[in-house]
Amino acid sequence: MASFTRRSESERSDSGVWKISRRYSERRSAYREIKMDTHGEGKKDGDHGATVSAEEAAADQKKGFTETSSIEEIFASKAVPTWQKQLTLRAFVVSFVLGILFTFIVMKLNLTTGIIPSLNVSAGLLGFFFVKTWTKLLEKAGMLRQPFTRQENTVIQTCVVASSGIAFSGGFGSYLFGMSEVVAKQSTEANDAQNIKNPTLGWMIGFLFVVSFLGLFSVVPLRKIMVIDFKLIYPSGTATAHLINSFHTPQGAKLAKKQVSALGKFFSFSFFWGFFQWFFTAGDGCGFVNFPTFGLKAYDNRFYFDFSATYVGVGMICPYLINISLLIGAILSWGIMWPLIDAKKGSWYPAELSSSSLHGLQGYRVFIAIAMILGDGLYNFFKVLGHTLFGLYHQLQHKDSASVLSVSDDRSSPVIPQSLSYDDQRRTQLFLKDQIPTWFAIAGYVSIAIISAATLPHIFPQLKWYYIVVIYITAPTLAFCNAYGCGLTDWSLASTYGKLAIFTIGAWAGASHGGVLAGLAACGVMMNIVSTASDLMQDFKTGYMTLASPRSMFVSQVIGTAMGCIISPCVFWLFYKAFKDLGSPGSEYPAPYALVYRNMSILGVEGFSSLPKHCLTLCYAFFAAAIVINGIRDLVGKKRANFIPLPMAMAIPFYLGAYFAIDMCVGSLILFVWQKTNRAKADAFGPAVASGLICGDGIWTLPSSILALAGVNPPICMKFLSSGMNAKVDDFLAS
Amino acid sequence: MASFTRRSESERSDSGVWKISRRYSERRSAYREIKMDTHGEGKKDGDHGATVSAEEAAADQKKGFTETSSIEEIFASKAVPTWQKQLTLRAFVVSFVLGILFTFIVMKLNLTTGIIPSLNVSAGLLGFFFVKTWTKLLEKAGMLRQPFTRQENTVIQTCVVASSGIAFSGGFGSYLFGMSEVVAKQSTEANDAQNIKNPTLGWMIGFLFVVSFLGLFSVVPLRKIMVIDFKLIYPSGTATAHLINSFHTPQGAKLAKKQVSALGKFFSFSFFWGFFQWFFTAGDGCGFVNFPTFGLKAYDNRFYFDFSATYVGVGMICPYLINISLLIGAILSWGIMWPLIDAKKGSWYPAELSSSSLHGLQGYRVFIAIAMILGDGLYNFFKVLGHTLFGLYHQLQHKDSASVLSVSDDRSSPVIPQSLSYDDQRRTQLFLKDQIPTWFAIAGYVSIAIISAATLPHIFPQLKWYYIVVIYITAPTLAFCNAYGCGLTDWSLASTYGKLAIFTIGAWAGASHGGVLAGLAACGVMMNIVSTASDLMQDFKTGYMTLASPRSMFVSQVIGTAMGCIISPCVFWLFYKAFKDLGSPGSEYPAPYALVYRNMSILGVEGFSSLPKHCLTLCYAFFAAAIVINGIRDLVGKKRANFIPLPMAMAIPFYLGAYFAIDMCVGSLILFVWQKTNRAKADAFGPAVASGLICGDGIWTLPSSILALAGVNPPICMKFLSSGMNAKVDDFLAS
Repeated sequence: MASFTRRSESERSDSGVWKISRRYSERRSAYREIKMDTHGEGKKDGDHGATVSAEEAAADQKKGFTETSSIEEIFASKAVPTWQKQLTLRAFVVSFVLGILFTFIVMKLNLTTGIIPSLNVSAGLLGFFFVKTWTKLLEKAGMLRQPFTRQENTVIQTCVVASSGIAFSGGFGSYLFGMSEVVAKQSTEANDAQNIKNPTLGWMIGFLFVVSFLGLFSVVPLRKIMVIDFKLIYPSGTATAHLINSFHTPQGAKLAKKQVSALGKFFSFSFFWGFFQWFFTAGDGCGFVNFPTFGLKAYDNRFYFDFSATYVGVGMICPYLINISLLIGAILSWGIMWPLIDAKKGSWYPAELSSSSLHGLQGYRVFIAIAMILGDGLYNFFKVLGHTLFGLYHQLQHKDSASVLSVSDDRSSPVIPQSLSYDDQRRTQLFLKDQIPTWFAIAGYVSIAIISAATLPHIFPQLKWYYIVVIYITAPTLAFCNAYGCGLTDWSLASTYGKLAIFTIGAWAGASHGGVLAGLAACGVMMNIVSTASDLMQDFKTGYMTLASPRSMFVSQVIGTAMGCIISPCVFWLFYKAFKDLGSPGSEYPAPYALVYRNMSILGVEGFSSLPKHCLTLCYAFFAAAIVINGIRDLVGKKRANFIPLPMAMAIPFYLGAYFAIDMCVGSLILFVWQKTNRAKADAFGPAVASGLICGDGIWTLPSSILALAGVNPPICMKFLSSGMNAKVDDFLAS
Repeated sequence: MASFTRRSESERSDSGVWKISRRYSERRSAYREIKMDTHGEGKKDGDHGATVSAEEAAADQKKGFTETSSIEEIFASKAVPTWQKQLTLRAFVVSFVLGILFTFIVMKLNLTTGIIPSLNVSAGLLGFFFVKTWTKLLEKAGMLRQPFTRQENTVIQTCVVASSGIAFSGGFGSYLFGMSEVVAKQSTEANDAQNIKNPTLGWMIGFLFVVSFLGLFSVVPLRKIMVIDFKLIYPSGTATAHLINSFHTPQGAKLAKKQVSALGKFFSFSFFWGFFQWFFTAGDGCGFVNFPTFGLKAYDNRFYFDFSATYVGVGMICPYLINISLLIGAILSWGIMWPLIDAKKGSWYPAELSSSSLHGLQGYRVFIAIAMILGDGLYNFFKVLGHTLFGLYHQLQHKDSASVLSVSDDRSSPVIPQSLSYDDQRRTQLFLKDQIPTWFAIAGYVSIAIISAATLPHIFPQLKWYYIVVIYITAPTLAFCNAYGCGLTDWSLASTYGKLAIFTIGAWAGASHGGVLAGLAACGVMMNIVSTASDLMQDFKTGYMTLASPRSMFVSQVIGTAMGCIISPCVFWLFYKAFKDLGSPGSEYPAPYALVYRNMSILGVEGFSSLPKHCLTLCYAFFAAAIVINGIRDLVGKKRANFIPLPMAMAIPFYLGAYFAIDMCVGSLILFVWQKTNRAKADAFGPAVASGLICGDGIWTLPSSILALAGVNPPICMKFLSSGMNAKVDDFLAS
């Protein structure tokens, strides 16, 4: 009755967004790290041999991706260990611990809003910190057998990224959880047994194992083309490499130590803040997460600051543009549109519907958001595809086509042109030293594809083996497109390819044959391949720049992926068991994208018949608007584009409300003020502070879910009542 | 029934404490300012001619009251304006504005806990800031006729202190409000019409006008003896002088500007924090002030952090020892004693009593606190009296007794011994230049005393004219004692002298003749004289050190006192009208000392008969304990005494609970961490930040009381319910 029940409406959006924000933020934090790293170094090297450079890539280069020739000279005295020696036990122990940490964080973000910032910086920092402390201790005890090298650091970084990446691509907040009964029940269509598959630990682990390694094998043969021949930028990978390189120089280690200390402080603060908040959350609508900061009326329209350390941290990492876009989207939707549509209740849609019904206001929220996300996704798909084709065309025209296509015999002729800088020569030399035979990659891909095609129909009877074969035939091409586009623009379109699979396979299977579930499963298969392809290519770029062997990178990726296939389902299972209302609207973990993905699948299978009045018209309008806005952004040039919001970011609060946008804007504001006060310090420690905030709050979910599992309830409810309601409650309490 | 009703028990203590904490804090902040001021200056001057030096005074000198001979040399080039020119209109405009600001703050503190920190630093800072800005603007406009001098600054400082001092000595939180019906009703004794006088604007202003100027005239003849002959330290006055001197040197002005900026920032923060909190306080037990930070059980025992910016600021200004003493007192009483006594309910006192009845648990709280305060007061009274007599004895033996006693003809022979330092020579010369004839002071005192004795019985019929005459005959002696003791120890015992008047005059009048009211009124008369005497002597010391003329100081004091006599009752009246439950237990403004003072008066008139079982025994024990602890503190030496709590500070939370002690310890903690991180910065800006916090929250009470007067209620209640209670309320709300 009181205000806080309004949030109960389900809160979902689209997972496609995270990749954008992730890459965006990586690019941004990359810029910062470079700044820290290369002060005083002016010379640009010839790293941009690729003749095609996307606007963004060019800008990135201009901004800070200038490498000095001195980096490898600085490290010249340090021997590079053999690839077997790069793979140490301690690296994998640390990776395992960090993998669990980051899986918790990613899972929490998946299940709350679905916006996941870059954790690479934290992973790099913490990995360095753990192993460095370890080796320091051993050194003092005189037991150190192998020093800590940047190659080993890269191995850890790669392993952690591979492992925690599964938490995203496993679809626990999107397609996979969208199959469950709790989500299916929220829409009236396709909630029969044929279209439902509840999560259990067994099939989730099995599913991940058969689909997650394919992407890995598909990128291995492309490695040399992308990194050496095309010289793609991979801004995130480059940034991570710079970070790791900087840590292993003396002054870098000192800065890293200070950063770790800042991260540690804010980690503790954020953890204890989460702990403190917990005490006040006995019951629904209680606690700081329901704090009506701007009044109860604004709270009803989901405008409030929910004191989430995580999203304040996320806001500090994400670029201002993303945060502002979110806020604009929130104001447009919850401030203007939804109240207007709400006023049409009874005319546009039946007034007696429950607030979470997709035939009512909730339908407008979900489908308009989907339309905008699809419009944005489509625009960028064609844009990146255009860049890819254009880039390939130039590449093939201007380079010796033989060297590009001689994927299989790259071991035979490691001829390094003398025109390259010292850094590039040395890096290319080491990158080509340890090869992974292409036949091995192809054999691996084919055999896993066969196993997968044989196994998957047992997990999802709706997903016929021939659907799988079709996916596996087209997937390497799409993986190539994604890896190439990502190398140019830092923009992974994995979720767009996943949606493509939802619509095509879903429509092919048809409503009567469990098409909804088939579509979701197909989405999972496709996303895993395509997402892994771009992620791991970034890692190869990192490896290239830190002289890590491609073999050790590959082994690390395999081990990391295997870890992820175990860790992620287990962590999800913990959440699923601990929070009984996981995925139900208005709960602490509404898993917003699960319903969105399911509804896309329903839409693909059954068409637009179920939408409320005028909803389709509005969807078309927003679909078109997303394309137009993107077009304008590209037309006006990089500088002015910074004042035009991103449609994809605007769409998220359409569905969820403004609260997390406000958190993130608070983060932005803090960073802004900090930068005004002390630019150098803010640039150096901003990412560390943000990571601390995110990690501390994220890891608090571990004890919090254990408390929930143990049946320990918080003792106090901090409740917010209107003045009138409070008087009534006081009367009730007095009686 | 839920937890938050427990605070409803009335919350009082004794106002005697404030003077201690005020002086203590002044001394401490003095120390800081000196440190800022005299860095690099090693030489101690001969300012301690007074042969008797109390331990504390000596320690103060050692700590930082070292003056360099160069101060007056630095200022030598600057002409000292005539005394008429020191009194500018702008000075009094600024004083008026600051007077209102500080009266609001002091009033709020009076009515909440009664602990009032030193506002001298803020007054000095803000006074400097306002006039400096003003003169800067005029200078730019080419209209500046008179530059801003340190003498003018001293005039402002003196005027503000005189004006806001009335807010304390007027007894709005103690004796004066203790006469009202709302306080009288809380005890069963002496609440007949004869012993009640409700506040109205008219008689309050009249009362203050006839009693507040006496102290002023009584100190004027003592001026030269105390400052020049006895060379008393007056740590607070000295500190303020250092502050003002430092502001008027170039680097001092720069630092002052930065401090003002810090003060401004925290002022705004604190103001908006108060504003924000307001929205969540619809109803009793709502809002941040009732936040059960450590759980509901601890909240029931008044252990919680109430998010008060004021008391965090107060904690930053007060010495660690005071804050720790408060916390120890809170743990001893609310953590141990009250729960134990509560367990005796039904045996020691009737179980069916209301929680605010003085015959129940509340009686133990109030009277044990009173006993401890009286014990501490008595100890210090005799200690300071001893010092005074001993000091006087030495002074008379070692000095030319003629010069000491030639008070009236000091104009005739301004012979300045050549043994003095340059600073002292110049200061003495100027201090003796403008004289106020002693006949003028005596005539003023006598005529005001006659007016007062004629008028007061019309305001309080219970207070016979001969009581007043007796007070006025003894008062100058006590005023001398207090001014002398304060000069040595920085410790004003005004409230102790006030209590003396309560007991003597109350007993003299007797229960049947309205002795309770007579006692309270007598307390007011006495306190005003004695408190003004020591306060203004501090100002004369400041004037001495800043070369301000005694005449301009006197005029400024007169004007300031007159302002205070108008401002304070008006501000109190605003509170009284705006907050209907002012003075009632458990409200936002419980005015804790009002009940304590009234109960002391009842005790004096009627004896111990009304106390609950064993209460008197406990009172004796704590009375003795206070004396013993003080004795030990004096025996073990200054250094170790820092680890022994102050009984007076311990007694306050006995009555009020731990919440404000926790606020203050948070303030201490912030300062402590800050000092560890950056000692210099913390020392320079700590007082400014604390003042900002106190002033912002204090001034928020102005709009908040206007809102209350206008009948605007906050829209939201932030309520705290136990888990079980919350389930019930949710059921009720759902039905």
